Amino acid sequence: MGNGVILLPNYMAVLSYDGTAYHGFQFQKNALTIQEILEKSLEKLYRERIRVVPAGRTDSGVHARGQVVNFFAPEIIPPAHIPMALNSILPRDIVVLKAEEASDCFDARRSARSKIYLYTIDNGYFPDVFLRNYAWHIYEPLDTDAMQLAASFLTGKHDFKAFQASGGSVESTERTIFSLSVEKNDNIVFLRFQGDGFLYKMVRNITGTLVEVGLHKRRPQEVYAILKSKDRRKAGMTAPSRGLCLEKVLY
Amino acid sequence: MGNGVILLPNYMAVLSYDGTAYHGFQFQKNALTIQEILEKSLEKLYRERIRVVPAGRTDSGVHARGQVVNFFAPEIIPPAHIPMALNSILPRDIVVLKAEEASDCFDARRSARSKIYLYTIDNGYFPDVFLRNYAWHIYEPLDTDAMQLAASFLTGKHDFKAFQASGGSVESTERTIFSLSVEKNDNIVFLRFQGDGFLYKMVRNITGTLVEVGLHKRRPQEVYAILKSKDRRKAGMTAPSRGLCLEKVLY
Repeated sequence: MGNGVILLPNYMAVLSYDGTAYHGFQFQKNALTIQEILEKSLEKLYRERIRVVPAGRTDSGVHARGQVVNFFAPEIIPPAHIPMALNSILPRDIVVLKAEEASDCFDARRSARSKIYLYTIDNGYFPDVFLRNYAWHIYEPLDTDAMQLAASFLTGKHDFKAFQASGGSVESTERTIFSLSVEKNDNIVFLRFQGDGFLYKMVRNITGTLVEVGLHKRRPQEVYAILKSKDRRKAGMTAPSRGLCLEKVLY
Repeated sequence: MGNGVILLPNYMAVLSYDGTAYHGFQFQKNALTIQEILEKSLEKLYRERIRVVPAGRTDSGVHARGQVVNFFAPEIIPPAHIPMALNSILPRDIVVLKAEEASDCFDARRSARSKIYLYTIDNGYFPDVFLRNYAWHIYEPLDTDAMQLAASFLTGKHDFKAFQASGGSVESTERTIFSLSVEKNDNIVFLRFQGDGFLYKMVRNITGTLVEVGLHKRRPQEVYAILKSKDRRKAGMTAPSRGLCLEKVLY
């Protein structure tokens, strides 16, 4: 990136993808990832190796409606034409929605002020076939009022260590959740998280814990005790990745 | 079926499926169909060959939220347990939602009074990745008012020969469309057809023609002239199968 920062313009792009077929965003040696597909497509377009920086490294099976990346590239394609050009190369499960030139110092990850994740639960008795890759099917009815009450203990600035999966390696485990809403629409339950950042598997660990509240396996107040314990073993199960979607990144 | 009618109870079942991976409902020698999968699952359950009769033979790639079938089978499983038992055998893209005993004379196809089909168009500038198998992506904005006006000429009892694809072999091409609504919800356009029956590819041929109206390639009034012509060559293109879903069958 060294030369790029000085010589090449910086572009930001918004993309949407169905994560079902991919082992997450970040490049892996022996597994197909969004980053690999995206960088290969950029290489086809620009005829040189281009590295992308994502706002959030979504896990295997996690989807995105509004992932943001930035990359330094030669000024040979007008930004407004980048989406169409890339979409003609990308597979059908990855779509670039927008591209524009950004300031040199724009970094999709570090410049992000907040992110919105949506977790979808299919709470019908039988699974909806059309949601099988996009929702967690739970046939027992969830008490969403109890879930919303439990969720209210998590908003604000806290040390979320209890909800971080092992494997996360960050300096601070303090994060701010600006809002966490639980909404029911027919048989579908949506958990909408907006925060300044999320620890490794934090959204899925919180979701799994709130689901246990919704099933009356835990009382809503317990979630506050779990948070304060800073002990991962106290929290609930990790919700499956397929229900999770990175909706939007705000700058 | 001869003996079955006399000796075995008749069951009706409602099923939902993602048609993407299948060559339609009806059994084919060299292609995977819903019927084959369903009958194999019934055979595993009942340990004998069971034939199903569907309300509508959906085409390759067409989906269903409320397909109805009937079948004669031994009285060894309480009807309320049939969905769960079958779902444990069926692949994840086919789900049985309901089963109950029906009268001996119930025939899923012949007893149907009306059917509701929903055609989904993704009218966003870029395709929604999550709808890529469930909608027809048209990036040019559709004039849905013009489409609704054109659709109004088709409701009622008419000879729909102009909208029947070759390959259809029925005695009468007269059908009644009880309602045909065109609704826009953000970038999604829904065409909802309710009728007493539909000719081969009739819904997709009408949709293709209405889309041409929505793109101002035809005037709404032309649709009436096409209907009256009874000439397939006058009608528009056939809309792709992936946007079509059999929503409900009414008895």
